Amino acid sequence: MESNNRVEKRLNSLSGVMTLDNNDQFTSIRAISEAIAAPLEIEDQVVQSMPDASPIKWHLAHVTWFFETFVLLPHDPTYRVFDGAFGFLFNSYYEAAGARHPRPERGLLSRPTLAEVLNYRAYVDAAISKFLAQIPDHGTVAALMKLGIQHEQQHQELMLMDILNLFAQNPLRPAYTTPINTPLSSLKGHIWHNFEGGLYTIGHNGGSFCFDNETPRHQIVLRPFALSDRLVTNEDYLAFMEDGAYSRPELWLSDGIATARANAWKAPLYWFYDDQHAWQQMTLHGVCPIEPKAPVGHLSFYEADAFARWAGHRLPTEAEWEVAAADVPPSGNTLGSGQLRPLPIGCGGKDQIFGDLWEWTSSPYVGYPGFSAPPGAVGEYNGKFMSGQMVLRGGSCVTPDGHLRATYRNFFYPHQRWAFLGLRLAKDL
Amino acid sequence: MESNNRVEKRLNSLSGVMTLDNNDQFTSIRAISEAIAAPLEIEDQVVQSMPDASPIKWHLAHVTWFFETFVLLPHDPTYRVFDGAFGFLFNSYYEAAGARHPRPERGLLSRPTLAEVLNYRAYVDAAISKFLAQIPDHGTVAALMKLGIQHEQQHQELMLMDILNLFAQNPLRPAYTTPINTPLSSLKGHIWHNFEGGLYTIGHNGGSFCFDNETPRHQIVLRPFALSDRLVTNEDYLAFMEDGAYSRPELWLSDGIATARANAWKAPLYWFYDDQHAWQQMTLHGVCPIEPKAPVGHLSFYEADAFARWAGHRLPTEAEWEVAAADVPPSGNTLGSGQLRPLPIGCGGKDQIFGDLWEWTSSPYVGYPGFSAPPGAVGEYNGKFMSGQMVLRGGSCVTPDGHLRATYRNFFYPHQRWAFLGLRLAKDL
Amino acid sequence: MESNNRVEKRLNSLSGVMTLDNNDQFTSIRAISEAIAAPLEIEDQVVQSMPDASPIKWHLAHVTWFFETFVLLPHDPTYRVFDGAFGFLFNSYYEAAGARHPRPERGLLSRPTLAEVLNYRAYVDAAISKFLAQIPDHGTVAALMKLGIQHEQQHQELMLMDILNLFAQNPLRPAYTTPINTPLSSLKGHIWHNFEGGLYTIGHNGGSFCFDNETPRHQIVLRPFALSDRLVTNEDYLAFMEDGAYSRPELWLSDGIATARANAWKAPLYWFYDDQHAWQQMTLHGVCPIEPKAPVGHLSFYEADAFARWAGHRLPTEAEWEVAAADVPPSGNTLGSGQLRPLPIGCGGKDQIFGDLWEWTSSPYVGYPGFSAPPGAVGEYNGKFMSGQMVLRGGSCVTPDGHLRATYRNFFYPHQRWAFLGLRLAKDL
Amino acid sequence: MESNNRVEKRLNSLSGVMTLDNNDQFTSIRAISEAIAAPLEIEDQVVQSMPDASPIKWHLAHVTWFFETFVLLPHDPTYRVFDGAFGFLFNSYYEAAGARHPRPERGLLSRPTLAEVLNYRAYVDAAISKFLAQIPDHGTVAALMKLGIQHEQQHQELMLMDILNLFAQNPLRPAYTTPINTPLSSLKGHIWHNFEGGLYTIGHNGGSFCFDNETPRHQIVLRPFALSDRLVTNEDYLAFMEDGAYSRPELWLSDGIATARANAWKAPLYWFYDDQHAWQQMTLHGVCPIEPKAPVGHLSFYEADAFARWAGHRLPTEAEWEVAAADVPPSGNTLGSGQLRPLPIGCGGKDQIFGDLWEWTSSPYVGYPGFSAPPGAVGEYNGKFMSGQMVLRGGSCVTPDGHLRATYRNFFYPHQRWAFLGLRLAKDL
Repeated sequence: MESNNRVEKRLNSLSGVMTLDNNDQFTSIRAISEAIAAPLEIEDQVVQSMPDASPIKWHLAHVTWFFETFVLLPHDPTYRVFDGAFGFLFNSYYEAAGARHPRPERGLLSRPTLAEVLNYRAYVDAAISKFLAQIPDHGTVAALMKLGIQHEQQHQELMLMDILNLFAQNPLRPAYTTPINTPLSSLKGHIWHNFEGGLYTIGHNGGSFCFDNETPRHQIVLRPFALSDRLVTNEDYLAFMEDGAYSRPELWLSDGIATARANAWKAPLYWFYDDQHAWQQMTLHGVCPIEPKAPVGHLSFYEADAFARWAGHRLPTEAEWEVAAADVPPSGNTLGSGQLRPLPIGCGGKDQIFGDLWEWTSSPYVGYPGFSAPPGAVGEYNGKFMSGQMVLRGGSCVTPDGHLRATYRNFFYPHQRWAFLGLRLAKDL
Repeated sequence: MESNNRVEKRLNSLSGVMTLDNNDQFTSIRAISEAIAAPLEIEDQVVQSMPDASPIKWHLAHVTWFFETFVLLPHDPTYRVFDGAFGFLFNSYYEAAGARHPRPERGLLSRPTLAEVLNYRAYVDAAISKFLAQIPDHGTVAALMKLGIQHEQQHQELMLMDILNLFAQNPLRPAYTTPINTPLSSLKGHIWHNFEGGLYTIGHNGGSFCFDNETPRHQIVLRPFALSDRLVTNEDYLAFMEDGAYSRPELWLSDGIATARANAWKAPLYWFYDDQHAWQQMTLHGVCPIEPKAPVGHLSFYEADAFARWAGHRLPTEAEWEVAAADVPPSGNTLGSGQLRPLPIGCGGKDQIFGDLWEWTSSPYVGYPGFSAPPGAVGEYNGKFMSGQMVLRGGSCVTPDGHLRATYRNFFYPHQRWAFLGLRLAKDL
Repeated sequence: MESNNRVEKRLNSLSGVMTLDNNDQFTSIRAISEAIAAPLEIEDQVVQSMPDASPIKWHLAHVTWFFETFVLLPHDPTYRVFDGAFGFLFNSYYEAAGARHPRPERGLLSRPTLAEVLNYRAYVDAAISKFLAQIPDHGTVAALMKLGIQHEQQHQELMLMDILNLFAQNPLRPAYTTPINTPLSSLKGHIWHNFEGGLYTIGHNGGSFCFDNETPRHQIVLRPFALSDRLVTNEDYLAFMEDGAYSRPELWLSDGIATARANAWKAPLYWFYDDQHAWQQMTLHGVCPIEPKAPVGHLSFYEADAFARWAGHRLPTEAEWEVAAADVPPSGNTLGSGQLRPLPIGCGGKDQIFGDLWEWTSSPYVGYPGFSAPPGAVGEYNGKFMSGQMVLRGGSCVTPDGHLRATYRNFFYPHQRWAFLGLRLAKDL
Repeated sequence: MESNNRVEKRLNSLSGVMTLDNNDQFTSIRAISEAIAAPLEIEDQVVQSMPDASPIKWHLAHVTWFFETFVLLPHDPTYRVFDGAFGFLFNSYYEAAGARHPRPERGLLSRPTLAEVLNYRAYVDAAISKFLAQIPDHGTVAALMKLGIQHEQQHQELMLMDILNLFAQNPLRPAYTTPINTPLSSLKGHIWHNFEGGLYTIGHNGGSFCFDNETPRHQIVLRPFALSDRLVTNEDYLAFMEDGAYSRPELWLSDGIATARANAWKAPLYWFYDDQHAWQQMTLHGVCPIEPKAPVGHLSFYEADAFARWAGHRLPTEAEWEVAAADVPPSGNTLGSGQLRPLPIGCGGKDQIFGDLWEWTSSPYVGYPGFSAPPGAVGEYNGKFMSGQMVLRGGSCVTPDGHLRATYRNFFYPHQRWAFLGLRLAKDL
């Protein structure tokens, strides 16, 4: 795998262009998807490691289908579809866009081959470029192009999550890439940032791109609270484990302990115990020792919630988090750093609010007051998932640069662990 | 089953005492549980119809175990336990109270027999009466007694839910009791009650009994909204069904349509189609035709949410509901009416806000700002269930009289349908 | 449960009549079913402990349905059906007799009550008596009566199997009855009975009642073999367990070790380990210590097969067993003894060939050469089960007296353990 | 896929060498495995289409592991293992050969890559050749080499079964290869070959290679019987389907109709109904119309058994089949023909006894009288599977040439359908 360093350089050089907001952005973002796949063998891009994950080949095709289906087909009368079967194969969940291949069977599709998928990408890329050159940048197409680009960035994060999940299940424990130099932690103590109670306004103000679920901007009432200046670390979490974490139901939500027991959880996902080396962790760099001062990741909401209760504190609400993040620059240890892992405390952006790990909040994912989903297939983007999931904030080390902001709402089911997920403590004042 | 009318009279006469708040209350409430079981055969009290339900025999024992475990054992040094095995058999979910028999296997317990369970009840009742006579009514015991009584009332509702569920699965479709005279509906139109936006305060003010989950009282911001003056009716829901309800994914949450498909839902629970008689419904009075003007019941949250979207409106939040209910007297068609079914529109309490059917809200069940569960087993009463469930408000036709108030928060998982559940529409202004 | 001794006496007195082959036999056999149920509470007769088992109430009704459906309805034009719904509820598996209630849901039927089932029995009994008195004993009805009686005897064994299974899952470990005096074992050594190779004839010769699966009588070739003069004992099986039985895949069939692992088998069914008392066993007399010299029971075929391999021998084929049993009187420790458990070696019939425990053979259950099932519903009695099951021979301590013969073929799936199942070793010479 | 014809030629030319019994045989057989994989893309060789199937990459490695583990490691002291992890990854079911990767997760292994597996093959091939050149052909090694070669041939058939299963689940319905010219059927009538009853001897006589399960040769008694001179055809089976096959439980074994219902079977595996083209069939040549005169394939035992009952006949026993096949030359439409599908009636070997489709018998797969498995890992080859499966005879169109004989016993579970399976009728005389 001598190609890894080269690829990483490619990732780094590409990350520079990701803040552009012009016609080149489409090309740049598309190239990042292919750069992410570049260190992989063909074999790695076919397999689906679990129903929640998808094959890399599928991701590469699906994001392309999005541009074909929502930009080219409805707006470019000269466009001819690449392959009539791909609509069925690469629709993820858009009911309004027709029938689709069952999600858990994505890993059964050895065809189309990777080469065919890459041809599909090139074909659609060319069609988009030609189309964009021809039309004035009118509103609908521009909005759909922006949505398509943001959508592809979301799948770039999913690709790295899914690769780690796949490799973690292989007894050979392959490494996706080699690690680059890690800065040392400056972790000494732990500081609470205090916030006054009262009326606050949250949600996106509409001045630039945002997803529909970030609106409407609206007022809320907060009680006085404090937020920790750092993420919870591996050594914090080990102390919890050593204190009986997984066998103390009084620390858990009822659904949480039931899930932990049913799945025999004893540690975060990707941790495993080795008699010779104690706890180890599978990462995108292969198997590594646990780094004590780094943020603990790959936790379910249930584990994050139980840790907070054990620590005598609680998770923040999404409103508290957003208030605290409002003035923080939305950058940090994200995909462009090439680290592909959360950095030790003190090494990312300010308080590691952005990047490193998504932060579980105690807020169920529902629409803001006055929210309603837009009509049609694009309206299925977010609204229909507003049930049973929890909000996460702040982005991770595998989130593309430029993709984040303080109002960004990510969401996962409380049992899911394969994303780059961590937590920060909060408390009442 | 000639004894049904007698039993009903007993239920009615007992319901008169349920508003007393004195030493007789314990005896009165305990008698209602036995009155509910009285029309049943021994056989009916043994079976568990599904994992969510419990045998009647188990309910009768479990509520008794609650008094034994949380009142007598810790506070009455002279008390001798009735049977050492009952703690294991009749603990529902209190981790701090020790190991317990698995919930889905409650229906395997033919022993202890019903007669033994009734002996257990008599033994504990006598011990409680003796104990209460001896002690001054000091705080802890009084609080635990109140909690035990409220707890038994909650199980009275569960008993009727579980009996209906059991009988509905028997091809013989037995009737629990015979219906009493039903008033006619005065349904003509449909009125929106408007509410201004602004700061409101919700939650219990602490002046009388409430559950921990109703506190702390706190401020919230509401936008201007309106609430319908009536529940959604069976004829409303039939129109939704005839408009393709269950086959139109665009009306549903993603989890909702997946659940509906996986379970082949085509109508509310307990509805079945009969070529000769069209839609029929299994009720506590056996099989009945669908009453068009009566509120539609036994709906999941997913169905309620999809109906509201189809109707062009939405479900209320729990805060909106509480604001609207704040000045409504907490009475209506509840258990004491002896109706055991939701009455047609116009026949219950004011706007049928209380009684008839629990009303789904769009609010996930989480703790109020500043909530924390009390320590120990009693602290497991509510807090640990604050995950994955939705709030319901207002009570039902099988909720014991005197048990309800505007701040009362009930909760079920979004797929559950066996409770007496309905909906009321809301909209933004 | 002071009534147990009385019931047992009733069982004993009744067993005396079971060899009669006249008009009284129907009444006698029917009375035994009710005597078996007599020590039970109503609650015990409602529950289904697992999908393979049925509620006692269901057994009592089903065997009655058999007489109603196959004797009265087709042959007695004056007969009026007791309840039209019972055909649906109490048909076990006869496709030709119409639709039926799903087997795994038999435990959901609290109605009809036990009292109603007993009324059903009395009604059908009266109708049968009246009908038999009126007609000359012509062939078809006599054959169906005989089949119905044999069928009811089979369910008598099932009732006792199912009661043990139910009580074994109750943490209170109730006893069905109290044990009677047990003779001591005369076990000293172990003798091989040798049999020459050559042509033999097996199968029923048609002179008296037999099931269709015992025919046609036909020739087979056997190699020289030997059969042990005794069943394998608990102490034999403990030695196997102590030698690593369940963790040595080389001793098992592939399906066997997979089943043992999937179900975490560590011992025969109904054995459990108690730190204070070592291995104990749940029996119809409640919890008892393991009796070393008694035959080991409640084994799957997989365990019997693995034991035999471990012992350096093998299970007999059904032909070998039948050849060895041909001249042995078909009596021993069966239901009429009142023991309700396998007796120590040396205490039953000759070599305990008949009674005590059914003996697993290595023969898959298929039709004999030339076998074909009779047409119609009665033809479903045996033939359609000739797939995936193994033959057992010899009867058990809960098989009704007079029900057995050397050609009798019982059958269970290789993973099933709730019947009274044991094994005897064989070897090649 | 222009390479298909080339590959087919390669297959054809290789098939010529498969009857050699000398030192070149190893090389020739190994080359056939690679020729079978040659038309496939890398992507096709990674995926596991169901738990019963394996990825092609896994097959290629597993058969290599067999030679490494059972020939080289125990007998060649100079041999150095290729990769220590491969023993864990590529052991199929040999408990005595150590721990192994779970079968249903073979499709999660993107690594080792196909290129690495092909290196592994080359490495082991070279080591075997060097080793064989050095040693005199003493007994044990020669026997193990023969077993390894037969084993690889069995996996060649599995590779083609698994590829068809994978491609059949892809909505694109890829073709493995293009069909070659098919001869026309000479089907006119249907002839019964009669066989006298009496003593026969079956099983292998030991003069050449055979599997352990073909021994010991032994006597059996047969009644007079007749066997059809042809396989059951697609048009025969369509008539059965049109006569209500899958909805007539009286034609089925109880386990059979339960399996058919649970899996919603309506036709043989790989058949699907297309409004425009009626019944179609997925084959190794892609989607084809049903050929009426060709043998019906991809049937479960349950379907074969039900068909025979419907036709008024029965399946043959394995003994009957072997008696009938004893004098038939063991050749026909096997892999070397390049047809890769069953030929129409009249086109294969004599009566299509060998080749075309494996023929279900009514005989459960158990050891012959006196059979015992050899000790050690190689003894796990057949013996431990003698439970729950049925015997098939005769080979198929994807069985390698030279692999078959009259005594050969194949076996599958009665519900399995992905092998090339058909049936021939028998009857009593």
